[in-house]
Amino acid sequence: MATAKLMSNAEAEAIPEVKAVFDDIRETRGSDFINNIWRALANDPQGLKRTWDQVKAVMATPGALDPKTREMIYIAVSSANSCGYCVHSHTAAARAKGMTDEEHGELLQIIALAAMTNTLVTSLQVPVDPEFEVS
Amino acid sequence: MATAKLMSNAEAEAIPEVKAVFDDIRETRGSDFINNIWRALANDPQGLKRTWDQVKAVMATPGALDPKTREMIYIAVSSANSCGYCVHSHTAAARAKGMTDEEHGELLQIIALAAMTNTLVTSLQVPVDPEFEVS
Amino acid sequence: MATAKLMSNAEAEAIPEVKAVFDDIRETRGSDFINNIWRALANDPQGLKRTWDQVKAVMATPGALDPKTREMIYIAVSSANSCGYCVHSHTAAARAKGMTDEEHGELLQIIALAAMTNTLVTSLQVPVDPEFEVS
Amino acid sequence: MATAKLMSNAEAEAIPEVKAVFDDIRETRGSDFINNIWRALANDPQGLKRTWDQVKAVMATPGALDPKTREMIYIAVSSANSCGYCVHSHTAAARAKGMTDEEHGELLQIIALAAMTNTLVTSLQVPVDPEFEVS
Amino acid sequence: MATAKLMSNAEAEAIPEVKAVFDDIRETRGSDFINNIWRALANDPQGLKRTWDQVKAVMATPGALDPKTREMIYIAVSSANSCGYCVHSHTAAARAKGMTDEEHGELLQIIALAAMTNTLVTSLQVPVDPEFEVS
Amino acid sequence: MATAKLMSNAEAEAIPEVKAVFDDIRETRGSDFINNIWRALANDPQGLKRTWDQVKAVMATPGALDPKTREMIYIAVSSANSCGYCVHSHTAAARAKGMTDEEHGELLQIIALAAMTNTLVTSLQVPVDPEFEVS
Repeated sequence: MATAKLMSNAEAEAIPEVKAVFDDIRETRGSDFINNIWRALANDPQGLKRTWDQVKAVMATPGALDPKTREMIYIAVSSANSCGYCVHSHTAAARAKGMTDEEHGELLQIIALAAMTNTLVTSLQVPVDPEFEVS
Repeated sequence: MATAKLMSNAEAEAIPEVKAVFDDIRETRGSDFINNIWRALANDPQGLKRTWDQVKAVMATPGALDPKTREMIYIAVSSANSCGYCVHSHTAAARAKGMTDEEHGELLQIIALAAMTNTLVTSLQVPVDPEFEVS
Repeated sequence: MATAKLMSNAEAEAIPEVKAVFDDIRETRGSDFINNIWRALANDPQGLKRTWDQVKAVMATPGALDPKTREMIYIAVSSANSCGYCVHSHTAAARAKGMTDEEHGELLQIIALAAMTNTLVTSLQVPVDPEFEVS
Repeated sequence: MATAKLMSNAEAEAIPEVKAVFDDIRETRGSDFINNIWRALANDPQGLKRTWDQVKAVMATPGALDPKTREMIYIAVSSANSCGYCVHSHTAAARAKGMTDEEHGELLQIIALAAMTNTLVTSLQVPVDPEFEVS
Repeated sequence: MATAKLMSNAEAEAIPEVKAVFDDIRETRGSDFINNIWRALANDPQGLKRTWDQVKAVMATPGALDPKTREMIYIAVSSANSCGYCVHSHTAAARAKGMTDEEHGELLQIIALAAMTNTLVTSLQVPVDPEFEVS
Repeated sequence: MATAKLMSNAEAEAIPEVKAVFDDIRETRGSDFINNIWRALANDPQGLKRTWDQVKAVMATPGALDPKTREMIYIAVSSANSCGYCVHSHTAAARAKGMTDEEHGELLQIIALAAMTNTLVTSLQVPVDPEFEVS
C-alpha cells in the first residue's frame, strides 16, 4: 500500500546502518516495536538515520517542555497537515505519556478553534497589529 | 490592506452588538486593546459574536490544560496553516502567559520536526500500524 | 517584490503572444485594467496563454452556476490555500458581481466552520460512513 | 480505525448531554441517521455540543445563501484542506439539497482552477494591486 | 469509494467526447491502461478534456526539463498537498521514466527538509531579504 | 516584523555556537551573506545548528541529483506550503545555480498543474489503482 517497500526485521538485520538505527529506536523507547514509518524510511539508510537522529534529539532529550506536551504539539501540527498516520501514531504516543481523555478533548477544541480563526484571518487579510511585532 | 474595513472604536460603539463583544473582550482580557481581527470581524456582528464566544469558551475557561500550553498549541496550528497574523498574535499571547525563549525554541523545533515527518509519511504513503488504532 | 518581473504595458505590447492575451483579457472583462498576476505570468507567454484560457473557460463561460457563486467558491478555496493575493482579487471580483456584505459575512462563517470541522475529522481520523459512498 | 471510539446509540443514550445533541441533530435534519463525526466527537460532550451548535447556526439557519450553495462552499474548503471524510459527507449533503451532476462538474473545475492559480501566485509572489484593497 | 462513479471502458465508449480523450491518453502513453482519475473525471466530459489537455501540454510536450525531473517535481507538490493518490501515481510514473531508488531517497529528503524550513520560516515570520527580490 | 529578533553580525559573534554556524554557512557557500532565516534561528543556537546541519547534508552534499534540480524541488514544496520567504530565497538560489527563465516557466506550470489535479483527486476521492502499489 506504500510507495516503497516496508522492510521486515530480517531485511533490516542484513543492512548494518539500518540495524544500528532500529537497535537505537528499540533502546531509546524501551520496546521491541518498530512502527511502519521506520520500515519505509529504511529503503534509504542515510535518510533513515538523519530522520531518527532528529526525532531523538527533539523528542527524547530532556528540556523545558515535558514529553506529553511535546506529543500534543505534534498532534496539532499533524492534524493541520492532514497526516493521518502521524495523527494515529502521536495520539497513541501522547496517551502512553499520560494524556487524559479530558486533555485530548481540550486539545482538539484548540486545534479546531485555531483552524477556524486562521481561515477567518486569511479570508479577511487582517494586517498585523504593531503591538505584536518584535522590534 | 484587508478585504474588509477595520472598524474604529467610534464605529464599534455605534453598533450595540459589536460594542457588547468589544466590552466583553476588554473585560475578559483585562486590557483596553482590541486587536485587528476583531475590528475586521465586526463587519458581521453575528459572526463576530459567534467567533468570540468560541475563543472565550476554548481559551479563557479553566480546564485541564494551562493557558500557556493552549497558546503554544495555537502557534503550532497557525504555523502549519501559514497564518502570519495568527503566529504573530499568539506568539505575543504565549509570551504574555509565561512562555520563555527556551520553550519557544523547543516549540519551533517540534513544529519543524512534525512538518518534516508529516511530509515523509505522505510521500511514502505509510499504512497505519494496527497497534495505533482505537478498537 | 515578486520572484519574476511584472511586465509593463509597453513590454507586453512588444511580444505578440502576450499582447494577444492581454487584449483578450481586456475584451472579456470590458475593462482596461490588467492585474498583477497576468503581468507576472507574462514572463512565460505559453504559460500565460494556458492559464488565461483556463480562467476564461471556467469563469467566463455561461453554465449552471452564476458568476457571483463562482467567485465565492474561488474565495473559499483561496482562503483555505492561504493565497492572500487571490483572496484580495476574488473578493473584489465577487463584490463587482453582486456579493453583498451579508453574503460575504455568511461565506466567511461557512469557510471558518468547514476549516474547523475538517481539522476535527482529521484529528479524530473518522472513517467514511458507507452511506456517503457512491457505489 | 479512528483515534477515538465511535460511540454507539446505546452509549450515547446513557450520557444526557450527548443524547440531547443527538436528538437535536435528528430533529434538525428530519432523519434518524447520525454520521460518524458526531459519534467520534461524543467522547467530549462539551466539544460535541459546541461543534453542533456552530454547524446548526451556520448551516441550518435561513440567511442570504441557499442551503445548496452553502454545501458547495463546504466541499470547496474541504477539498482544499484534504479532508476526505468531509468531501464525502458534504458531497452527499449537496446532492440531497439539489446539486446536479452539471453543477458538481462545474464546482470541481472552479476548485481545481483556484488551486492552480493560488499556486502560481504563490510561486511568483505577486504583490496585491492597490485596486483590490479596501480603504 | 469515490464521490463520483468510476466509469468503465464500456460506459466510456458510449460517450464520444470521453472515448476521444481515453483514446488520446492511450496513444500518448503507448499503453492501454487508463487509471482511476480519468474514470472519475469522465462524469464531466468537458472537465475531463480540459484536464487531460493541460496534463498532455505540460507533461508530455518536449521542453527544457526532462520527463523524470517533471515527475519528481509532481511528487514534491503532491506530497506537500497531502494527495495520496497523486503520490502513488506519480511515484510509479517517475520510476517508469527512470527514477532510481537513490534519487527517490534524495527527493524525499529534500521534500522533508523544505517542509521543515518552510514551517520554521512561518513560525518566525522571517522578512524577505532585499537581495532576493526581483527589481 | 518577525516573531523573534533578527540577530546582527555583532550579536552572532558574541555567541560561540552561533558564530561557528555562521562561519560554516559562509565557508560552504563561499559568500559573506547570511540571510534572515539564520539570523532569526540564532535565538536558539541548538536549533540553528540542527537546522543548518540538515540543510548542509541534504543540499550541499554531492549525490544523485544536481544542485539546480534540488533547488527546483525546494521551490515546488515551498510554493505548495505557501512560504513566501522560502519561494523568494530558493528561486534566487536556483537562478544562481543555473535555472533559466524557460526552466522557471516550465517549473511553475508543473507546480500549477499538480496543484490542480491534486485538488481534483481529493474532491473526487479517487481510490488508488492497484497497479500503483508497491507490493
